[in-house]
Amino acid sequence: MTVDVGVYGATGYTGLELVRLLEAHPNAHVRFVTSESAAGSSLRASHPLAPDLMLVSAQDAPLDNVDAVFLCLPHTQSARIAAAALECGARVVDLSADLRIDDPAIYEQWYKVPHPTPDLLPMPYGLPELNRLRLLGAECIANPGCYATALLLVTVPLARADLFVTGAPLIIDAKSGVTGAGRSAKQNLLFGEVQNNFSPYNIGRAHRHLAEVEQELARAGYDGMPPIFVPHLLPTDRGILAAIYAQVTDLDAAQDAIRQAYACEPLVCALPPGELATLAHVVRSPRAVLSMTPSDGNVLIIMSALDNLLKGAASQAVQNFNLMMSYPETAGLLPA
Amino acid sequence: MTVDVGVYGATGYTGLELVRLLEAHPNAHVRFVTSESAAGSSLRASHPLAPDLMLVSAQDAPLDNVDAVFLCLPHTQSARIAAAALECGARVVDLSADLRIDDPAIYEQWYKVPHPTPDLLPMPYGLPELNRLRLLGAECIANPGCYATALLLVTVPLARADLFVTGAPLIIDAKSGVTGAGRSAKQNLLFGEVQNNFSPYNIGRAHRHLAEVEQELARAGYDGMPPIFVPHLLPTDRGILAAIYAQVTDLDAAQDAIRQAYACEPLVCALPPGELATLAHVVRSPRAVLSMTPSDGNVLIIMSALDNLLKGAASQAVQNFNLMMSYPETAGLLPA
Amino acid sequence: MTVDVGVYGATGYTGLELVRLLEAHPNAHVRFVTSESAAGSSLRASHPLAPDLMLVSAQDAPLDNVDAVFLCLPHTQSARIAAAALECGARVVDLSADLRIDDPAIYEQWYKVPHPTPDLLPMPYGLPELNRLRLLGAECIANPGCYATALLLVTVPLARADLFVTGAPLIIDAKSGVTGAGRSAKQNLLFGEVQNNFSPYNIGRAHRHLAEVEQELARAGYDGMPPIFVPHLLPTDRGILAAIYAQVTDLDAAQDAIRQAYACEPLVCALPPGELATLAHVVRSPRAVLSMTPSDGNVLIIMSALDNLLKGAASQAVQNFNLMMSYPETAGLLPA
Amino acid sequence: MTVDVGVYGATGYTGLELVRLLEAHPNAHVRFVTSESAAGSSLRASHPLAPDLMLVSAQDAPLDNVDAVFLCLPHTQSARIAAAALECGARVVDLSADLRIDDPAIYEQWYKVPHPTPDLLPMPYGLPELNRLRLLGAECIANPGCYATALLLVTVPLARADLFVTGAPLIIDAKSGVTGAGRSAKQNLLFGEVQNNFSPYNIGRAHRHLAEVEQELARAGYDGMPPIFVPHLLPTDRGILAAIYAQVTDLDAAQDAIRQAYACEPLVCALPPGELATLAHVVRSPRAVLSMTPSDGNVLIIMSALDNLLKGAASQAVQNFNLMMSYPETAGLLPA
Repeated sequence: MTVDVGVYGATGYTGLELVRLLEAHPNAHVRFVTSESAAGSSLRASHPLAPDLMLVSAQDAPLDNVDAVFLCLPHTQSARIAAAALECGARVVDLSADLRIDDPAIYEQWYKVPHPTPDLLPMPYGLPELNRLRLLGAECIANPGCYATALLLVTVPLARADLFVTGAPLIIDAKSGVTGAGRSAKQNLLFGEVQNNFSPYNIGRAHRHLAEVEQELARAGYDGMPPIFVPHLLPTDRGILAAIYAQVTDLDAAQDAIRQAYACEPLVCALPPGELATLAHVVRSPRAVLSMTPSDGNVLIIMSALDNLLKGAASQAVQNFNLMMSYPETAGLLPA
Repeated sequence: MTVDVGVYGATGYTGLELVRLLEAHPNAHVRFVTSESAAGSSLRASHPLAPDLMLVSAQDAPLDNVDAVFLCLPHTQSARIAAAALECGARVVDLSADLRIDDPAIYEQWYKVPHPTPDLLPMPYGLPELNRLRLLGAECIANPGCYATALLLVTVPLARADLFVTGAPLIIDAKSGVTGAGRSAKQNLLFGEVQNNFSPYNIGRAHRHLAEVEQELARAGYDGMPPIFVPHLLPTDRGILAAIYAQVTDLDAAQDAIRQAYACEPLVCALPPGELATLAHVVRSPRAVLSMTPSDGNVLIIMSALDNLLKGAASQAVQNFNLMMSYPETAGLLPA
Repeated sequence: MTVDVGVYGATGYTGLELVRLLEAHPNAHVRFVTSESAAGSSLRASHPLAPDLMLVSAQDAPLDNVDAVFLCLPHTQSARIAAAALECGARVVDLSADLRIDDPAIYEQWYKVPHPTPDLLPMPYGLPELNRLRLLGAECIANPGCYATALLLVTVPLARADLFVTGAPLIIDAKSGVTGAGRSAKQNLLFGEVQNNFSPYNIGRAHRHLAEVEQELARAGYDGMPPIFVPHLLPTDRGILAAIYAQVTDLDAAQDAIRQAYACEPLVCALPPGELATLAHVVRSPRAVLSMTPSDGNVLIIMSALDNLLKGAASQAVQNFNLMMSYPETAGLLPA
Repeated sequence: MTVDVGVYGATGYTGLELVRLLEAHPNAHVRFVTSESAAGSSLRASHPLAPDLMLVSAQDAPLDNVDAVFLCLPHTQSARIAAAALECGARVVDLSADLRIDDPAIYEQWYKVPHPTPDLLPMPYGLPELNRLRLLGAECIANPGCYATALLLVTVPLARADLFVTGAPLIIDAKSGVTGAGRSAKQNLLFGEVQNNFSPYNIGRAHRHLAEVEQELARAGYDGMPPIFVPHLLPTDRGILAAIYAQVTDLDAAQDAIRQAYACEPLVCALPPGELATLAHVVRSPRAVLSMTPSDGNVLIIMSALDNLLKGAASQAVQNFNLMMSYPETAGLLPA
């Protein structure tokens, strides 16, 4: 069985990946792709390996003809399309931040703009490995941020098992490839600026993904210090590697908690002791890969790696779509 | 003795290099630096290794207080500032294309806009190794294009010695780092687009540097087929390597002509037989490096390498400034 | 139906790609993978995304248990294994240079070593789009070199149609990513040497791929000047872009000849007029992409792009395997 | 006044930088350069921008004719040359690890080999900003490791002012360009392995630079938990950026301590509040750059950036040489 789907914002990096995945998905047929700036041209003009699909503007998209839509749009724009799609009876996977935060006041605090559609909140948070039951058959899912996915895969199992040392800082040093910043022309993302450079940005308590990380950590029972989050821009096109420094009450129990959380998961892999996660483990793969190294002072060093465009965005969106539609969760992502 | 100079357009890649060179120049003192978008902030905000000089807008630049100006401005804007500076008695090195083409009709044909100051034309073309006598003591010099420098260093000596086979195509396959395209935010120059890619652009008879190349080749006596010029964008920040395929009447004479042209030149180096010019020879160096490999069919393969921001722009501008001011030509470029 | 296959030399860049393709191939089952240096460990230790297959040394490979083998071995070693495999009744796709040259004297001239198995020669040259009939059902196929594939796809149709201008040089300026040089540790391939650099090597008449290019060009009727071939090393991991400058007797006929040669080919694509082939068209794709730009002096500028590890090696090997086994030629390469 | 110097191990990345600096140094004349593998050829063959100096083997170096030597040699080899040089009356800056550790037993513990010349120990540790008085006029100086320099510049002022929270982990997440690993051919340093990748290595308590970091921290009065050190390999050629997460008793006092330590230092720069250190601040510069960001839980996030080949090796060696010889400390590094 195949359903018709639409992709809004198809010419960005995430949109292109998503279309590529959906074109190969056994149960999806891409019915339309949208772009405001490139409407009227083929998606192939946006990338030479993309399929030859004609782009339309969002308002011309035949929303009535699809069963589900994927929204790769800027925040605030996304929520409005989500509302319209749900009204038409289409299911929605929203890859923007709009539907991730349950409380519109917290959304406004981080995104500096009133929430465009507070009536839609809360929506289920689409991190299947941690939240699968809320996603099965859902009408609408908020797809997590790329950094947030990398961090929550590590911290939620520790919080659920109550293994964090109370009062100790939770330090996260993360590095992302450039596509995480989108495809809009900005001087600081030019090749001449990024090549041969490496730079921190929005460090400490400033990055917006903290909003969803803290919400989901609280839901998991975490009541410790707010995480210290230090993202950096890597001179690579894709991939996130985050080093999480967690002081835990029991190093063995902490490793077990993480290992058991993903023991049966096809798309999250905890490496054997002694191996370290790297970008090479995850780039162009729908899997997240974790490694754990116990150190002095009950500090567990956890490396969390994923492809920001896949497990951090497009392939996780496909997981969520599969759960919505009751397809096998890895359909279109792993060989059957 | 020191003279005061100003740099217009100091926040671009070429401007930054030029300020760096002038700050270390024994006879120059940078009196002002301009930027329209960043006026009021320090040049250091444009690059962390730049000197802490306050940027002013062009109209606020104290033109009366300087002996010479360097113009790193877009074409059409540059010529107007050049005219104003010359009227104030300041000497001018113009790094834009505005003053390179003797004939305003040809300028308009290539640049698709009427020449802004046809009265200023013609100006001496600032390629010192080929044209030094016209530059000594000049009031105003048109600094050549980066590709044009790489190509003319090879082809002018062959044309002067009348060594090209009549009627044979002159093929030039050139590759440039990304800074050659400037520092303005454009999607096709984003890291995510350039990394892992390599792409030709404006190939055949389309690139604007052909206008000055053809003018200077004609001046050198070339009357063969118009050059076929195929530029490519390299995933590097800086450097040009051009392969010139010249059918010559005498392979030995051709090599001699090039070797002798630069035998006494400190800033152009012809490598010994068997060595090949590479970007590593020239990046961050004010020297151009050439290599010659004779091949079948009387084809001489000449590699011409230079740093597009130095010998292709800023350091050549300093050579021209030195010639204007009767300083040693390599002052500020090579150890005394 | 599925056949068992073995891959010799699986830990190099080409071997890894080939195993990845074969693991996803609907008709192949990888029965063994070999490595001399890594025998006894898992292929995954050679790359974290490789399948978990145990490596054996070549002499321990169960040659009797497979229907076909792929040889990703250094030249001279490869031919000997090919002979042994054929004796065991296994079919062979040899990705080394050993079986590409019909005449052992010419092999010795270019490879500086006597041919190890002259009795095996000649073998069919595995460029399916140019040579399909000789490959269908073959017992053994010599898989072409990566540069050779890029060049022959362009030049053979022109030679067959007798469109080259007699006596004019045929100039080929080619650029390849680093994996084309293999995965052995060599100083000149270190990141610190290649990054920010771009360098020609083995230029003129020196590169070994000229041996097979000239042989196949001659077979296609070419009797012009030997090609001038100028390869360069790009700071990218994969991809070849070659610019071929062909003086032709008729620009329209030449474009037609190339366009018609691939009109029905799923794995070679001639772009519409005005578009230029780039690495972004081909990296991680089994397709070669060509573009044609007519220029002055009856010079046709043809860009030929392919992924050196795929159409230049592993995916072409799968095409050849498919032809050998009478599977659809794109099985395992394009969606069914 | 000029003194004659020799550089041992001149063909590695550090050696090449050092020769470049010394050639431009107003008081040094490079009398010899050594290499075991390239003896008899010119240094220029090792890098096209290097000076044309003939390489000799170490045993042929005219040690009697120089006033000082720089040792860019592997550990164990270096100490033996240091002993010989000192016996000949030449001063020594040793860039290897051999003379950094006061206690030969600790050396053996980390380097897994008995110390080759225990009689030479201890030697002054050449981090001028922290240790200048011990270096002035010294006969021999142990030049610090690149990571060690980045870490000690941050942690020693905090330790001296006793600002670390007792019992809290000291977490250091560091990233280095590839030249930090040397210029020997190793598969894991190939362009094809490093490009598009980012990987941790030797994490926790494994990296050898911890030996000298702990020694110097102890000397500064630190008695807290041993640092947790997590280095990563960046896909850049040069530069280190380390994020140090220090729990301090007083955030203001900690920032003051660091700021005051370098207030008068020309080669270490603490950025103003709100600015973040990046690789772009330091690559190809002899300066280290620090930034400080206070965060929750009394965690001070300090970014420490330097060029691993300069402040992390060659330019720091020149600082030490200058101190030895009573030249201005920045001679040859900054404009006079």
